[in-house]
Amino acid sequence: MNFGLVFKYLGIIIYFLGLAMILPMIYGFFQYLNGGPVEIIFSMFASIFVTIGTSILFIAFGRKSFGFIDKREAFLLVSLAWFLGSLLAALPFWFWALIHPFQAGEDSSFLNYINCYFEAMSGLTTTGSTVLHKITSISTVLVFWRSLTHWIGGLGIVVLFVAILPLFGGGGGAKRLFGAEASGIGNEGLSTNVRESARNLMIIYSLLTFLLALFLKIVEPDLSWYVTINHSLSTIATGGFSTWDISADGISYQGQWVLTVFMILAGINFGVYQQIYRGRFKEVVQDSELKAYLLTLSVATIFIAIWIYGKEYYTTSGIVADSQSSDVFLHSAFHVVSIQTSTGFASIDFDGWSFLPKSVLLCLMLIGGCGGSTAGGIKVIRIVAALKIMRLEIERAFRPSVVRPIRIGSLNIEYRQRTSILTYIMGVIIIMAIGSFILLLTEASGTSASTIITASIASVNNIGPGFGGVGATQNYGWVSDMGKLILSVLMAVGRLEVFAVVVLFMPRFWKTQ
Amino acid sequence: MNFGLVFKYLGIIIYFLGLAMILPMIYGFFQYLNGGPVEIIFSMFASIFVTIGTSILFIAFGRKSFGFIDKREAFLLVSLAWFLGSLLAALPFWFWALIHPFQAGEDSSFLNYINCYFEAMSGLTTTGSTVLHKITSISTVLVFWRSLTHWIGGLGIVVLFVAILPLFGGGGGAKRLFGAEASGIGNEGLSTNVRESARNLMIIYSLLTFLLALFLKIVEPDLSWYVTINHSLSTIATGGFSTWDISADGISYQGQWVLTVFMILAGINFGVYQQIYRGRFKEVVQDSELKAYLLTLSVATIFIAIWIYGKEYYTTSGIVADSQSSDVFLHSAFHVVSIQTSTGFASIDFDGWSFLPKSVLLCLMLIGGCGGSTAGGIKVIRIVAALKIMRLEIERAFRPSVVRPIRIGSLNIEYRQRTSILTYIMGVIIIMAIGSFILLLTEASGTSASTIITASIASVNNIGPGFGGVGATQNYGWVSDMGKLILSVLMAVGRLEVFAVVVLFMPRFWKTQ
Repeated sequence: MNFGLVFKYLGIIIYFLGLAMILPMIYGFFQYLNGGPVEIIFSMFASIFVTIGTSILFIAFGRKSFGFIDKREAFLLVSLAWFLGSLLAALPFWFWALIHPFQAGEDSSFLNYINCYFEAMSGLTTTGSTVLHKITSISTVLVFWRSLTHWIGGLGIVVLFVAILPLFGGGGGAKRLFGAEASGIGNEGLSTNVRESARNLMIIYSLLTFLLALFLKIVEPDLSWYVTINHSLSTIATGGFSTWDISADGISYQGQWVLTVFMILAGINFGVYQQIYRGRFKEVVQDSELKAYLLTLSVATIFIAIWIYGKEYYTTSGIVADSQSSDVFLHSAFHVVSIQTSTGFASIDFDGWSFLPKSVLLCLMLIGGCGGSTAGGIKVIRIVAALKIMRLEIERAFRPSVVRPIRIGSLNIEYRQRTSILTYIMGVIIIMAIGSFILLLTEASGTSASTIITASIASVNNIGPGFGGVGATQNYGWVSDMGKLILSVLMAVGRLEVFAVVVLFMPRFWKTQ
Repeated sequence: MNFGLVFKYLGIIIYFLGLAMILPMIYGFFQYLNGGPVEIIFSMFASIFVTIGTSILFIAFGRKSFGFIDKREAFLLVSLAWFLGSLLAALPFWFWALIHPFQAGEDSSFLNYINCYFEAMSGLTTTGSTVLHKITSISTVLVFWRSLTHWIGGLGIVVLFVAILPLFGGGGGAKRLFGAEASGIGNEGLSTNVRESARNLMIIYSLLTFLLALFLKIVEPDLSWYVTINHSLSTIATGGFSTWDISADGISYQGQWVLTVFMILAGINFGVYQQIYRGRFKEVVQDSELKAYLLTLSVATIFIAIWIYGKEYYTTSGIVADSQSSDVFLHSAFHVVSIQTSTGFASIDFDGWSFLPKSVLLCLMLIGGCGGSTAGGIKVIRIVAALKIMRLEIERAFRPSVVRPIRIGSLNIEYRQRTSILTYIMGVIIIMAIGSFILLLTEASGTSASTIITASIASVNNIGPGFGGVGATQNYGWVSDMGKLILSVLMAVGRLEVFAVVVLFMPRFWKTQ
């Protein structure tokens, strides 16, 4: 293990995180010019100072290390990047809280550094769980920084899984399933030129964010740029932080439709956009993951729409929701998409729906978006692969000699990969179970089982809201400090596709072959 | 598909079921001699008549079919045996109810044939779920028949999975994991002489039943032979039908210890007893499934004992249970063993325990007993194998070139089998999820999620009680007719190791290659 090399790259990543903090500082500076408080400039500046200082230390430590990073080092690097990144991204929240003169009724959650860490991890993993109960009482600069952590984290994931990790190739399965190969999209151009690929992805990602802000502003001109930009950053990263406690209920129905469309777009493999960019429409139309993804969304939307039609339920601001047919369809589509893409916006308190639509949402939480997107969950492609593997296995139960290839698009799934895929899914299930189990120990005995379990599910799958105590109108502020740390770990585990974090706990990982 | 052959064997199996009904008829005859009612003799006789008549029809249909049964035919046969067997085994309950003059306060559940079918399926699959709310108001002959269905079903499973199915061998995995091969126990003597093997298993099974009845009577002479025999039949089959609504709370603490020991014995691979019978103690001591099974039971018992110590909870008859250390240890051990072996006896209303011990019980429900026993669940050997497979997979994530055999005892688990094992476990999870989902549709909207989900889990894993509305002090009488049919199917699916039933729904199963 070449620690020097890992630390050097870690330093570089942290350096960019520090640079990103300049943006909210500038925003704070303009607010100051318009009579805003100076405290936020101080807290942003101090955060930048600490972050860039840390990055320089790491880079200095690894200054003599050169060469290529190997697979184990890559795992260590991405895990450290998210854990250390969250420690530093939490600083603006904390420094602000330390110097802000809180008044009665203001949300002082950030006085506890663990809350800040939770919020930063939730941001960088694009989960969108919050500890805040009164977002509007927080400095708008911090709200912007929150949304920006989503965007940075999402960008990191897209670049990591589509451009960088496929380089390591091999039998890992988890990674082979990502990026180009899996979706039936050729990988020639992708792996051979990582820089170009990464640059394209950044352009596409930025373009989608820009377009969303624009469309939101067009359909709902009353929304401030502050609101539209925050929601754009949050949506394209499939994060889910909002500028209000009532989440997307602050946006009109037209605006929610726009969000729905862009959440769907954000849940698609970003390799698909590269294909479109290169004019390979045929491959895109034949992409079997994409088809399965859109099919799942459609079926779930129709099912839930039928189920909630005519029933009484409430918006997140607590008033009875319209249940005319067109509105019901929006409510269904918006939350199906929000949950499956792991964004986690809510305009309806879907926790008030009956078990059946809720259990559909639960399934969608587990399925998640497409591989190579910012969405969480197990990923559609793995689900499709697992179903094909299982069907063949069942057939082999009565016809043992059957040998048939399993294909997804142009990808042939070998025996080794079959075990990998099934292991991955079981791994996610086990991690969620262990998470629930530990939360049972850390949380008050009165906490309901559905709260505990969905908190674990919503964290591992990077969704945000669950049911019960962590439902659409609730927040994670009440969770114990220990519980918040556990949930933070679960978010990172889910975000980094389980293996990257889990391997660090294997003694063999640290042995030099 | 040679239907003639399948039907002939089916007829033979049904014939033996009919013969078994003679036993309770004799019991009823003795009761009649001592002043008991004559109705039960009529209902038993009518049932025997219909059952043996049906068996003759089937045998006649297949009288011209000879040769060996193949794998697909075996699957069809065992599925038909359990579904048709339950239809017929339900008759004594129904016929009795039709002619019995019910009085106020008596349990008339059996007037509904679907209840009878549910009870018979629960019996033959050794699940132990009941629709009865007042067992003592039912003819004791029927209670005996109920316990006998457990015993017959359990015997069928042992003979099927240890002696017969390994014959079909091949890559099915599900079956290779059963019987001798998997447990590191040599299979030479087993497959080569099925008759002898089956005979030995019947002797061992009967001997255990006899010994349990004897020991129960010795430690608690006040118990009638009626009670001891019923509980013996029910225990060795890991079924769980009791002679009382309060289940095992009618038995003293000494008696419960005896039951605990015999439930543990019943959850062990019956191949192990064959080894002991042949004097191969070394293999038995080295059996890794056995070790893992006993370890799980011990750890869970200690964990739950510590957790419930000093807490207030109730017996199934509703009084506060002793919580002195020795009693707490019994309560924990008894229920851990009862749940993991899928017996389902209860002397404590464990539904009143907190989430943590209940989630341990939930894990035990899924793990289940050893392969080749009458116990339900996924089976310890599959869990051990899956954990080893997953550990290797995770290692391969960072060291793709790692090739290491996965061994359980002397069995080497190949790639193909790895996929089979993981598929099996995922299959069980999916079946439980689908079961819960359908029950959500069939049951009243007020039914709690934990009731629905644990009803599905308790049925697929052949346990009996779950939590909430199907908890230790409850019964399944309130479930809708449709729900009972669904649960009956789930019991059969779980009992026949999922594949046997699921394959019947694949179009390819019915195609001639």
